[in-house]
Amino acid sequence: MFFASDNTAGALPEVLDAIQAAAAGFAPSYATDPVTEAVSQRFAEIFEREVGVFLMSTGTAANALAISSVTPPWGAIFCHREAHIMADECGACEFYTGGAKMIGVTGDGAKYTADTLGQALAAHPPHKPHIVPPKTVGLTQATECGRIYQVAEIEAITEVARSHDMAVHMDGARFANAVASLGCAPAEVTWKAGVDLLSFGATKNGCVAAEAVIVFDKAKAEELSYRRMRAGHLISKSRFLAAQIEAYLKDDLWLKTAMHANRMAKRLSDGIASAGIGRVAWPVDANEVFAIVPRPVHEALQAAGAVFHDWPFAGPEANGAGPDEALIRLVASFATTDAHVDDFLAALAEAGRTEAAE
Amino acid sequence: MFFASDNTAGALPEVLDAIQAAAAGFAPSYATDPVTEAVSQRFAEIFEREVGVFLMSTGTAANALAISSVTPPWGAIFCHREAHIMADECGACEFYTGGAKMIGVTGDGAKYTADTLGQALAAHPPHKPHIVPPKTVGLTQATECGRIYQVAEIEAITEVARSHDMAVHMDGARFANAVASLGCAPAEVTWKAGVDLLSFGATKNGCVAAEAVIVFDKAKAEELSYRRMRAGHLISKSRFLAAQIEAYLKDDLWLKTAMHANRMAKRLSDGIASAGIGRVAWPVDANEVFAIVPRPVHEALQAAGAVFHDWPFAGPEANGAGPDEALIRLVASFATTDAHVDDFLAALAEAGRTEAAE
Amino acid sequence: MFFASDNTAGALPEVLDAIQAAAAGFAPSYATDPVTEAVSQRFAEIFEREVGVFLMSTGTAANALAISSVTPPWGAIFCHREAHIMADECGACEFYTGGAKMIGVTGDGAKYTADTLGQALAAHPPHKPHIVPPKTVGLTQATECGRIYQVAEIEAITEVARSHDMAVHMDGARFANAVASLGCAPAEVTWKAGVDLLSFGATKNGCVAAEAVIVFDKAKAEELSYRRMRAGHLISKSRFLAAQIEAYLKDDLWLKTAMHANRMAKRLSDGIASAGIGRVAWPVDANEVFAIVPRPVHEALQAAGAVFHDWPFAGPEANGAGPDEALIRLVASFATTDAHVDDFLAALAEAGRTEAAE
Amino acid sequence: MFFASDNTAGALPEVLDAIQAAAAGFAPSYATDPVTEAVSQRFAEIFEREVGVFLMSTGTAANALAISSVTPPWGAIFCHREAHIMADECGACEFYTGGAKMIGVTGDGAKYTADTLGQALAAHPPHKPHIVPPKTVGLTQATECGRIYQVAEIEAITEVARSHDMAVHMDGARFANAVASLGCAPAEVTWKAGVDLLSFGATKNGCVAAEAVIVFDKAKAEELSYRRMRAGHLISKSRFLAAQIEAYLKDDLWLKTAMHANRMAKRLSDGIASAGIGRVAWPVDANEVFAIVPRPVHEALQAAGAVFHDWPFAGPEANGAGPDEALIRLVASFATTDAHVDDFLAALAEAGRTEAAE
Repeated sequence: MFFASDNTAGALPEVLDAIQAAAAGFAPSYATDPVTEAVSQRFAEIFEREVGVFLMSTGTAANALAISSVTPPWGAIFCHREAHIMADECGACEFYTGGAKMIGVTGDGAKYTADTLGQALAAHPPHKPHIVPPKTVGLTQATECGRIYQVAEIEAITEVARSHDMAVHMDGARFANAVASLGCAPAEVTWKAGVDLLSFGATKNGCVAAEAVIVFDKAKAEELSYRRMRAGHLISKSRFLAAQIEAYLKDDLWLKTAMHANRMAKRLSDGIASAGIGRVAWPVDANEVFAIVPRPVHEALQAAGAVFHDWPFAGPEANGAGPDEALIRLVASFATTDAHVDDFLAALAEAGRTEAAE
Repeated sequence: MFFASDNTAGALPEVLDAIQAAAAGFAPSYATDPVTEAVSQRFAEIFEREVGVFLMSTGTAANALAISSVTPPWGAIFCHREAHIMADECGACEFYTGGAKMIGVTGDGAKYTADTLGQALAAHPPHKPHIVPPKTVGLTQATECGRIYQVAEIEAITEVARSHDMAVHMDGARFANAVASLGCAPAEVTWKAGVDLLSFGATKNGCVAAEAVIVFDKAKAEELSYRRMRAGHLISKSRFLAAQIEAYLKDDLWLKTAMHANRMAKRLSDGIASAGIGRVAWPVDANEVFAIVPRPVHEALQAAGAVFHDWPFAGPEANGAGPDEALIRLVASFATTDAHVDDFLAALAEAGRTEAAE
Repeated sequence: MFFASDNTAGALPEVLDAIQAAAAGFAPSYATDPVTEAVSQRFAEIFEREVGVFLMSTGTAANALAISSVTPPWGAIFCHREAHIMADECGACEFYTGGAKMIGVTGDGAKYTADTLGQALAAHPPHKPHIVPPKTVGLTQATECGRIYQVAEIEAITEVARSHDMAVHMDGARFANAVASLGCAPAEVTWKAGVDLLSFGATKNGCVAAEAVIVFDKAKAEELSYRRMRAGHLISKSRFLAAQIEAYLKDDLWLKTAMHANRMAKRLSDGIASAGIGRVAWPVDANEVFAIVPRPVHEALQAAGAVFHDWPFAGPEANGAGPDEALIRLVASFATTDAHVDDFLAALAEAGRTEAAE
Repeated sequence: MFFASDNTAGALPEVLDAIQAAAAGFAPSYATDPVTEAVSQRFAEIFEREVGVFLMSTGTAANALAISSVTPPWGAIFCHREAHIMADECGACEFYTGGAKMIGVTGDGAKYTADTLGQALAAHPPHKPHIVPPKTVGLTQATECGRIYQVAEIEAITEVARSHDMAVHMDGARFANAVASLGCAPAEVTWKAGVDLLSFGATKNGCVAAEAVIVFDKAKAEELSYRRMRAGHLISKSRFLAAQIEAYLKDDLWLKTAMHANRMAKRLSDGIASAGIGRVAWPVDANEVFAIVPRPVHEALQAAGAVFHDWPFAGPEANGAGPDEALIRLVASFATTDAHVDDFLAALAEAGRTEAAE
């Protein structure tokens, strides 16, 4: 019953095998190896256009490097106030940009709209040079609360961005889960919808440590090449990074894996919804389930061995969770099985019974 | 005949197996897993004291993060002018420190002495606040040219550093090769000799992507924890990083591997020295061989399939290589075999014969 | 009727004379001149203890440099969300600290309390190393809305700061107005109340361009010396800066001037309050008056030649100003006369009559 | 006999009067006042084209801000190794650029040539992304040693820069002295010769504290506007800054003043050359004289009350000054009189006599 995060899972066998296989022989280093080149081509196919591809080990690096290439030190980044880049990366964007300012937009389920973005921008009127000008919009797909932006929602948001001359970055730590859920082409939900840069996550969905910045405007490629190097994010034995991604993308493994995780999350949320104990906080669009349960149930679940995170928000931002309730996050991954889900639901039912009895 | 760099080799079987094994089950992420903890303990044993340990994927990150924890933005870092941190990391130290200044010290074989350091410091007199004050000394062990600092040499250098209130960082991208060559305890050549922070390299010597910052003064640990995170160098599935290091350290695999690489380098340099074609540029202390060969020999070697780098220095810094000569670098690794060496020496002999015939 | 800001006034005759007088002869530069030294001594008397003194030309520099000396790049700065350092300095604190994060605390009149600060800190729980740790508290005295923190209020706030191991900076762009209003010793409202660093403003209150960072802990002095230099804020002909401050501090000119400005503001607010047209938004503690007036009155005042700023907030933050009302800021300075105030009040009365007639 | 620096002089009466006059009445702040606008127009006339003008208080700020607008954090700045921006500004360029690397070019009299620049660039071959790419060339006019670049020399240097896609910045802390010496139009020696940005110094030549960044490509203007603000270099009572420059530029006061200083320097160097005691180190192109004198003479001069700086270089860089000799710098300014020069020459003669007698 390990639902703490998708990064607590191991790695896909195909990815592990690819690492093993990549070890044979000698290969050029620092992203000049043939596998790295092949992976770039593969991304071009997937996204139906030429793209700049920058592999690295972490999502924080991918996000912050991508954003630093479009945000001057004196600019502002607008994103959801609960976004990972805002709240969980220890100031990575501030560090990488050289001190840009991050401004939080609100919205239920860690999701905002073109309207709320517009309001946030209106509340930040130009006052040159006293106020940092808006430069970048950050979207998280899927969001921190497992919600998904529909293509039309993204289009509306990027239109607002464009009208303010802002670049658009998408944090796709769970991009696979989002695409699998939407059932659309990766291009539809990114550059065709107005996204300029994508952090294409692969670690959470089954790699060991592999992420890619996808740059739809190749003019940014030179800059990112130097920025990645000076940040120490250019892996010397780059073949091992590329091999992971190659295996991950092959035969749509990334989408199949994400579909599985999404299915497990759906099964879990359906079970919670029908259990009559607590409630599901937000529609489950991808592989994350947020549930509001009475505190005694929360304790009982943990005592039964369920591992999950409490979500550190309260009141409206916790979808109305009251003081006697806990908002918990449960994340499914490639490693989640039906049995894991069933065990959790059984534990929940048991906890519910106990609570009712008290 | 692949001698381009030790990072063009694959990875040790033990390391690959450890990655495979680490994939089983669920584990806490972000360096809170048990293997990460175990590795910290292991380093404490190896260095005979409590240490702060920060694992990450690249040596550039290790160097720049370590140095940023002891160098204020307004300080100066003194290191060899050919040092990797100075010349090859695209300004990583400047980036991570927030704009410290790097000042190059000269010396043959990318090695400097307490005396030359002292002279460089004397040529940089205090002129507060107009001139950045010296804050950090950077040593590379083994050096970029494969030379090694003896323990007494390090002690003399750190004494100069101490007398200027400077911290001492050691770039140990090839620390294993150095320790294997010196035959001393790791503690002797680091903190007991006055070193404050060490970038403990493991990638070049057989890992996939794994380095550690070792902090001998644990007071710096909190700061590095935040700095690593905001730089995007805290790996989420940290067990895979820790597993590599665990396997690498087990049963002195790291030292045995380094000894092999050093032996291959020695065999190579002995062969070159006795071939009568060109000459070995510097004593081979570790796993790198620098040779000066006539340009036609250089071409013939490449034509024969030998892969190596030209060293981008000339004149005195190239140990007197003339305009008709090339200074080439040959690096041995765990993957180098006797046969590789013999093939190279045969190609060299052949090239020498051809040249003599012309 | 020029009430746009206290920085739209010229300069005190005593300050201008001091600049003129300082021009005689030759003097050492870069803060090694005798007047700079004398000013440091004078500040030590005023603050009843040894202090580090760093003169510079702007308040933004003073604030950002002071804060950068106590906030690591990976830390968080808590201040009022309308504070100048947060909202009006184009990201100066982010720039100078190397990317620290600023977190806004709410409160009426741009003033917060120990309680609201405590709540903001509670909503930012430690989650090492994912979340930037709180490092610095910023107070503005007088606030952006002309309110003043009482000594006991500051003590309560700095106690919260201390319990979180945070440093406390006071932005005293209008410190003179605050001290004049409180009638207390400068020491009482600063270090004796737990403040670590003060931006001692002098420009708004009658200097040409002169501010001082006062460091109560002299251990920070060395660092600030280098930071100021590399920021380009060490004036070469430093005597001209020091001379302004010397004249400003002599015979309590700074306090007498502030008292005058405060009196003018009081007279203005009393007049507005009794005019029956609109209302005064916040108690006038210092030299700023905020008034809420019907939009037609706002237009009429401007047409009559009154110069002031609209305050860019609405709703609760504007003390309930409705959509048909304007929140305007009127600032008095040493250059404001009874006649200026009377003219404004007459224009207001006239605007009120016109509005009533329509 | 105060020859320590031109910044040890006071200020021109015209500049002081302008400050006094500027104090009258109210004026908009933060560079929106009419005098600031007028000064921009005046610079457009002087430079015979539209220009962006950014006033600030110090030359270090002007240099570092200008350079930061054309140098990415991952770029390299090439300038003379003795240049103020390299050696005396405590890392301002590294700070403002976010960590660019400065690379020193050598040359006698702190002056380099197109050839030596080309050699330095050749020794820094592209090795993307491992080595920071050259982005900016910095020239100092007049140089740290009082030499001047002829227009043709600048053209040759900027041609090298252009061929490497580098921007060109000119540090004109003593630009007036250089233009006065060359007798050319300011446009000829700047943008017509390939210079992109100029730090137009005014403080050393008679202002209180006033410098201007002149941007010949107005596309950089928006960026600099924000950068100056966030650095705290936008003066609130901007009229006082603009008034200084207005007076300084009026009726060619700046050139007349510089001619006087240059004449005093010439008189001084002629006197030294003919005194037969020591020698003049470099031709005196502007207002600085460097002399090599026997150490006893150096002591005697100081004992006689002459104030000057020792130049902290030795050997070839000190034009061959031997161990028993001192290289001293003597700077003339608007405040230097014939009497000052004569007094110094008399003291020198006296010191020479004494030495000869010993």
